[in-house]
Amino acid sequence: MTALPVTIADIRRAAATLEGAVAHTPTIRAAALSELAGCEVYLKLETMQSTGSFKERGALNKLLTLDAAERRAGVVAMSAGNHAQGVAYHARRLGIPATIVMPAGTPFTKIDRTEALGATVVLKGNNLVDARRATDALARERGLVPVHPYDDPLVIAGQGTIALEMLEDAPDLDVLVVPIGGGGIIAGCAVAARAVRPSIEIVGVECSLYPGMRNALTGEDRPVGGPTLAEGIAVKNVGALALPIVRALVSDVLLVEEAHLERAVNAFLTLQKTIAEGAGSAGLAALLANPQRFAGRKVGLILCGGNIDPRILASVMVRELEREDRIVSFRLTIPDRPGVLGQIATRLGQLGANILEVEHRRLFLDVPAKGAKLDVTVETRDRTHAEEIMTALAGAGYSPVRIDPGGDGLTP
Amino acid sequence: MTALPVTIADIRRAAATLEGAVAHTPTIRAAALSELAGCEVYLKLETMQSTGSFKERGALNKLLTLDAAERRAGVVAMSAGNHAQGVAYHARRLGIPATIVMPAGTPFTKIDRTEALGATVVLKGNNLVDARRATDALARERGLVPVHPYDDPLVIAGQGTIALEMLEDAPDLDVLVVPIGGGGIIAGCAVAARAVRPSIEIVGVECSLYPGMRNALTGEDRPVGGPTLAEGIAVKNVGALALPIVRALVSDVLLVEEAHLERAVNAFLTLQKTIAEGAGSAGLAALLANPQRFAGRKVGLILCGGNIDPRILASVMVRELEREDRIVSFRLTIPDRPGVLGQIATRLGQLGANILEVEHRRLFLDVPAKGAKLDVTVETRDRTHAEEIMTALAGAGYSPVRIDPGGDGLTP
Repeated sequence: MTALPVTIADIRRAAATLEGAVAHTPTIRAAALSELAGCEVYLKLETMQSTGSFKERGALNKLLTLDAAERRAGVVAMSAGNHAQGVAYHARRLGIPATIVMPAGTPFTKIDRTEALGATVVLKGNNLVDARRATDALARERGLVPVHPYDDPLVIAGQGTIALEMLEDAPDLDVLVVPIGGGGIIAGCAVAARAVRPSIEIVGVECSLYPGMRNALTGEDRPVGGPTLAEGIAVKNVGALALPIVRALVSDVLLVEEAHLERAVNAFLTLQKTIAEGAGSAGLAALLANPQRFAGRKVGLILCGGNIDPRILASVMVRELEREDRIVSFRLTIPDRPGVLGQIATRLGQLGANILEVEHRRLFLDVPAKGAKLDVTVETRDRTHAEEIMTALAGAGYSPVRIDPGGDGLTP
Repeated sequence: MTALPVTIADIRRAAATLEGAVAHTPTIRAAALSELAGCEVYLKLETMQSTGSFKERGALNKLLTLDAAERRAGVVAMSAGNHAQGVAYHARRLGIPATIVMPAGTPFTKIDRTEALGATVVLKGNNLVDARRATDALARERGLVPVHPYDDPLVIAGQGTIALEMLEDAPDLDVLVVPIGGGGIIAGCAVAARAVRPSIEIVGVECSLYPGMRNALTGEDRPVGGPTLAEGIAVKNVGALALPIVRALVSDVLLVEEAHLERAVNAFLTLQKTIAEGAGSAGLAALLANPQRFAGRKVGLILCGGNIDPRILASVMVRELEREDRIVSFRLTIPDRPGVLGQIATRLGQLGANILEVEHRRLFLDVPAKGAKLDVTVETRDRTHAEEIMTALAGAGYSPVRIDPGGDGLTP
């Protein structure tokens, strides 16, 4: 076996370098998630870093190797997400000017968040490839040091300190499940974990829309691209440095669907009382999608980031309630005369259904000229309760039809 | 000074009793919250307990003192919230039958959550006073051991273990800020903290709708009652055992308004990536409401629970975006002819405003017969951006009026 590009010595050096400047985040036993997943889940809360993700580790490890002239010149990085914040936060702390390149069209909140950390944001290119090219050009023209989000041995070594800490706090893990974007975090963690505990299994997770590492490892040619909840690991080209490490030390790369990511984000929220961004929930999503693969084992999950748009989080929460039939919508056919709405509302109250929304429509052609449709959205106890309500409304002659909250069509 | 009803010896005994059965939860330095609050915030994550709150500590400390006959007979507790889950969870673990009394009309999700933990839920009484009476009656009739949520020395001692752990992990705190409902957690924590670190200041927090402890301490007669986000500390009568402890060891009881509670829940979510229920956010709310009181000090906050209804959480998140003018609604006056909506939508797109909702109204009398009103809700970058959009729409002749998202009225 040829030497890998990052060693346990590099990672131990990174740990010493980072001490006191990035948090040794807690590793906790997650009781409710363990019950849900059918294995013993230990969780590393990288969301408790100052900028809400693990990215500070690699970024700071890189920044601290700059000499005085490089520090004066400053750094440049391409990222609209966690890496941007990690670089900006520690560059400001160290007095190093930071330029962050984001593709044009990046949401304002992401720009604002990075500017608030003192970085100069440059919008360049219509996609990540163009933005990457612009970053390289800026680095050359202005003499800035590029800080790559993953394809740099110092960055990989920084991320590897996560696994060192985790195995210090939970030494007897059987398996470590790690999200893969460019591969920086899994490469560093695999080197660290296998050095400290050779028997540990390392499993990678990609979202199924971005199976870049899986393709690279197996020679498959699965399509890569599309909108995903896990934008933090939506990477088309995996790192050249990470690839041989993953090939040598990782037993398996699992692909998770969007539905599992969404379910995992929701489980973190409701069961673990913690925010996970899509990429941060990938490990749990893999457990939920492959219960037999992990049954009964001690599984370490890295909750790598919690930077999710509040609007998306709110929508994930409401969609889950709809999925559980705890929020349901009915379309009723009613005679268009005074008092009917009052009758229905009273009946729903008796049934224990809490009304959330009512819309009254008279313009549909599929009702008699003197009739109307009423769309009612109610909060229920559970699926059985939703069915009871449906039955009661049918019995009262309102011909209720369930409106599918997931789509635009009507389902009977 | 007469002896207090709970001593540090009781709490150390509780710590030994609970070891291994409830989590020693992490205490972390909260960087972003520190910046927000202008002091150094350390956070004890009691949300990481199995049932999402600290209540397991007192409940289990009580349960473990039962003799064999009492264990067979079982326990009864009155609670629709965290205490119910704490008792149910550990009673099941120990094979003790648990009956939980909740007032009639308790939301189904709370009933379900407690039944899922193996407890028998009894709905009795139309309010907490009646439910309490029913609990006492059940205890007498069926020979069950009551587990009081706060007015029991064993429960108070159990809650006190929080402060022991916290000062073990962050020994140099200047002040500990603790929510007050019945007073169990602050009484236990005050005894423990002052014993371990006599110089520490203990500050209590009540929501201003439920100033029971403040009334009891000062002889004031502030009104008590009303709907609050902090339902976990919405207690009318504070504990008889807690009162002398608070009087002896707590320097101040601060009252926080609903707006501060809501802001704190949101700050935990967006800055700390963690879920706080209203009561859990009371400590942070007090820091935000009294910045000068805590400026520059090392402040310990107990994030005591994270059991908040997902619907309420979603609504808190969206309301905060509205408050920041990142979601704004305009009412426009438009000529009622084809193509106008397209023009407006195109213009909003050029302005970088993302449309969330559109409602078209023709039935208002304050527009010309051939005119209409259009209500548009858009997502903006920030307040300045919202003003730019407003100005542009006015320039285009649509006479935009802001619709106040906080109320039902219109504000110009």
